[in-house]
Amino acid sequence: MIFPELHLFGDGVPDQQRTEALQEAAQPLDGRLVRELQQLAGDLKVWLVPGSICERGREGQLFNTALALSPEGKLAASYRKIFPWRPHEPYDPGDQFVTVDLDGFGRAGLSICYDAWFPEVSRQLAWMGADVIVNVVKTTTKDRAQELVLARASAITNQIFVVSVNCAGPTGRGHSLIVDPEGGVIDALDDDASGILPAQLDRAHVQKVRSHGTAGLNRMWSQFHSHEAPIELPVYQGRINPSTWDPQNHGQ
Amino acid sequence: MIFPELHLFGDGVPDQQRTEALQEAAQPLDGRLVRELQQLAGDLKVWLVPGSICERGREGQLFNTALALSPEGKLAASYRKIFPWRPHEPYDPGDQFVTVDLDGFGRAGLSICYDAWFPEVSRQLAWMGADVIVNVVKTTTKDRAQELVLARASAITNQIFVVSVNCAGPTGRGHSLIVDPEGGVIDALDDDASGILPAQLDRAHVQKVRSHGTAGLNRMWSQFHSHEAPIELPVYQGRINPSTWDPQNHGQ
Repeated sequence: MIFPELHLFGDGVPDQQRTEALQEAAQPLDGRLVRELQQLAGDLKVWLVPGSICERGREGQLFNTALALSPEGKLAASYRKIFPWRPHEPYDPGDQFVTVDLDGFGRAGLSICYDAWFPEVSRQLAWMGADVIVNVVKTTTKDRAQELVLARASAITNQIFVVSVNCAGPTGRGHSLIVDPEGGVIDALDDDASGILPAQLDRAHVQKVRSHGTAGLNRMWSQFHSHEAPIELPVYQGRINPSTWDPQNHGQ
Repeated sequence: MIFPELHLFGDGVPDQQRTEALQEAAQPLDGRLVRELQQLAGDLKVWLVPGSICERGREGQLFNTALALSPEGKLAASYRKIFPWRPHEPYDPGDQFVTVDLDGFGRAGLSICYDAWFPEVSRQLAWMGADVIVNVVKTTTKDRAQELVLARASAITNQIFVVSVNCAGPTGRGHSLIVDPEGGVIDALDDDASGILPAQLDRAHVQKVRSHGTAGLNRMWSQFHSHEAPIELPVYQGRINPSTWDPQNHGQ
């Protein structure tokens, strides 16, 4: 079960008052809120992504942190948003990409709202073996239109599922959607009304698309011959290295 | 004037016979074909991207190479496709990203067809200062549907114009389009009929979107504070470095 970004935290206008309210409400990962969420997931015996929470870091920083609670009631993973929505958000950025293995399904990569505007996030998570990107969102503005395009593009370029869960009106613009590894929309909410999108995602679908190709044609993770030279990417002071490109084969 | 990928070269089924035909037809960049195209651009006094040509390299390799001819009749730039459409294409990959400064407009980044399936290409070109991605295409298959999403996503994430020029039917699937720096479709051909898309693109539009934000909100190239630590991207053995992120400020 996946809920939107900051689902358990209030909205408020992005001003000093909100920041102070968040500072008071912020919780450490070993605090009461997370313990209660763990218990809830354990009682219901479900995987639970309760959106993100406002996390208080060890030095008092604020992070926008997505959680994944396991059916055994454990905090299986937490991810601090790497790209806070600046200048509106008061959060410090995280510095770690996070995936979590969901027994019986596969691997989920965690992503929060504005992260989706940086294709590096889904690329990195897919390379770490994610079968699905779980993007929790609190988009209250008209740029939800662009996010619908970006969700599909991330699915296409990485051949993964993308689940983009936005909060409903009147706060959010809704339009949550689930995209398949070829970029097709499996299901979506067509407006800002609250709703539930039930879906069964099969990781074998990811493998099938990568083996047979998108539209039966394109196998981007199998592009290279192993002897080929790296493609230098000065934008990243890095490169695409043919011998470590395939998520199945880079030994991480 | 921009024409589709391999516009001056025949189609044929991707088999040994086609490869042999291409080997015979391939031209070096200082050969007759390019000279004639230079003369044409000079006579018409236009910037001309005659799609890509089948280039014969110094060691007899074949490259799929986009050209930009200037109104002065010069070969201003050539770009060898970095991501050949494998296994169908017989071309060796290029190893250099290429931009070209068009007097009076701005900077164009050259890209060919399947390059668009790798978001690294448009990211790298935007970082090199491109105001527009010129993607020449010869998509004959149903995955043109995905390419329409990718064209918009590249424009959104990089805040640049994207011009995706596909060949018409019966060979190609058409659906050429021009996208603005917020991902809106400026103009498009709605089917595979041949057609012309006249458009006036203003690089000031790129600067405006980056300054005011996409939808008046998002300024992804201005995300970082200069003292912030790099975001490590193991997929590229590289990183996003806040101090060199902005295309205006990295000194290239």
